[in-house]
Amino acid sequence: MKVLLKPILPVCSGIALAALSITASAFEVLPEVAPAPADNPTTPAKVELGKQLFFDQRLSVNGTVSCHSCHSVMANGTDNRPVSVGVFDKRGGRSAPTVWNAAFLSAQFWDGRAASLEDQAKGPILADVEMGMPSKEAVVKRLQQIPGYVTQFKSVFGGKDPLTYDNVAKAIAAFERTLITPNSAVDRYLKGDKSALSAAGKRGMELVEKVGCTGCHTGPNYAGPASLPVGQGFYQKFPTFPSKYDKQYDLKADLGRHEVTHNDADKHMWRVPSLRNVALTAPYFHNGSVPTLDEAVRVMAKSQLNKVLTNSEVSDIVAFLNGLTGEFPAITMPRLPPTPNRTLLEK
Amino acid sequence: MKVLLKPILPVCSGIALAALSITASAFEVLPEVAPAPADNPTTPAKVELGKQLFFDQRLSVNGTVSCHSCHSVMANGTDNRPVSVGVFDKRGGRSAPTVWNAAFLSAQFWDGRAASLEDQAKGPILADVEMGMPSKEAVVKRLQQIPGYVTQFKSVFGGKDPLTYDNVAKAIAAFERTLITPNSAVDRYLKGDKSALSAAGKRGMELVEKVGCTGCHTGPNYAGPASLPVGQGFYQKFPTFPSKYDKQYDLKADLGRHEVTHNDADKHMWRVPSLRNVALTAPYFHNGSVPTLDEAVRVMAKSQLNKVLTNSEVSDIVAFLNGLTGEFPAITMPRLPPTPNRTLLEK
Repeated sequence: MKVLLKPILPVCSGIALAALSITASAFEVLPEVAPAPADNPTTPAKVELGKQLFFDQRLSVNGTVSCHSCHSVMANGTDNRPVSVGVFDKRGGRSAPTVWNAAFLSAQFWDGRAASLEDQAKGPILADVEMGMPSKEAVVKRLQQIPGYVTQFKSVFGGKDPLTYDNVAKAIAAFERTLITPNSAVDRYLKGDKSALSAAGKRGMELVEKVGCTGCHTGPNYAGPASLPVGQGFYQKFPTFPSKYDKQYDLKADLGRHEVTHNDADKHMWRVPSLRNVALTAPYFHNGSVPTLDEAVRVMAKSQLNKVLTNSEVSDIVAFLNGLTGEFPAITMPRLPPTPNRTLLEK
Repeated sequence: MKVLLKPILPVCSGIALAALSITASAFEVLPEVAPAPADNPTTPAKVELGKQLFFDQRLSVNGTVSCHSCHSVMANGTDNRPVSVGVFDKRGGRSAPTVWNAAFLSAQFWDGRAASLEDQAKGPILADVEMGMPSKEAVVKRLQQIPGYVTQFKSVFGGKDPLTYDNVAKAIAAFERTLITPNSAVDRYLKGDKSALSAAGKRGMELVEKVGCTGCHTGPNYAGPASLPVGQGFYQKFPTFPSKYDKQYDLKADLGRHEVTHNDADKHMWRVPSLRNVALTAPYFHNGSVPTLDEAVRVMAKSQLNKVLTNSEVSDIVAFLNGLTGEFPAITMPRLPPTPNRTLLEK
């Protein structure tokens, strides 16, 4: 059930669909383990360290924001807000993508500017509107003052200088690779349980192929290939076709990948977002402007495929998308290492 | 090892110590189960519901702040900040007290204005500078839109109208009653393991009695009696003796319990804070103005008992206080009930 792309297309849209060579089904089962890069193998101790860091508000300048604040692991991996709120009530310009199954994305961030989870994890901690730490050095310096982290970095990474910003990112990425939601109704259906999907869900499954959604939303995460050569990501131009939605939902103000590359060809290019658990990650799109999944389906059909769906088609597709809600594994809370007898945080 | 107080003293300080009738040791072992009020028995389903609510940012007006944001269950039950940061970057005037072992306090909040955990839980959700929900009705209305909560309130509380603000508070309080940190070194020492405390810790234990700290810091939570008749709390006047610290740490700007009662006698009266896990809950005092435990011990000795401790006495007392750090139980993360296909949160 692999989708082969030849060549890897920088533009994925309804228009580009014909260029895709689909060898089997457009639908894939989610792997239960995410592959790790050679230089960052997933180990239980590293995952445990990464989990602590993920939930630790001390990674933000004033101790109020952790990765979890905007990527709720207890919920859908987002904050369900149009855009997230960082330190000092600062707002980002884009909606928080889910951290669940992010290990199966071809590139990270809406504009694909990070090639890996490791690269991604380095961004928000230093972003002024997110966690607001002034520098990598400031992050390392703060963690060096927490004895429980010093010990863990030493045992997990070893070497002369184990507590580095790179290793902070590696630990967080290792934890994130464990955030996988298997056994959705669609996965169970694909594995042979034909009762896993409702009649509407089955109609929706046929529709997303017929209408053309699977031109982009393929692969294990329904977001294109899970991995591509470094520097490449699986993108779509959004919106492709002009419509009333452009203005209604302010879809064109943000130039997307162009903000990173400054290439004209990258204007309004976005990494294809996952459809897994999409029923839980409202509001939708890079600017979080669309509050319901029904409307998001309508917007995508029109903007990407120039099609106007009937209400019953929308309803069937939404039923299918709900079938992509997976099982969230039970996770034990981390215990954050203390700084006995003092605090590191100031006013 | 019960401390009997006759009568219950509204003022607890070094001065009042002589009025305390101490029948046995000033030191108590922490119970492993917290008693629940007759109208809110602790049940597993209620605790589970309360845990979800405790971690749910949707209990704040813009979906950014949960109880956990300022009372980190993964850490020491506080945010280790001088004062907490609520929605829209608003600052409270007082430092967040720990939620761990709060079940064993005679009254809640720094000024004791809530008689129970149930009463306490109703405050921050509606406080403008904390979670900022506009009204009880708005909280109930939001939760009514989350199917998983509707089902749980029905099964946990039953009756015609199970999803009420009172029941939100009851569920949160039930969860909080499970937040107990037993088996500190001091507890183990008291139970007979004489090796549980270091020599310095043992000297510190003798000192806190000799110096007079145990005049107030007695009972299971080292914060006075765990329960008192409704409307009463175990208070101390702080500062009692004038010193350079008043100005240095701005100790007198906040009138404490007087803000609630407007009685002159309540000026600078504060509920006695717990010493359990105190090594982990810096910064100290109602305004979080003192960043280290050493200094907090010095300030208390001078301000409450008019004593100037030597460095070695401070060090011994801090060793004892570190012996009050308990074992934090492993907790499974809650799974927050979703609102499929839409979000409840706006810009």
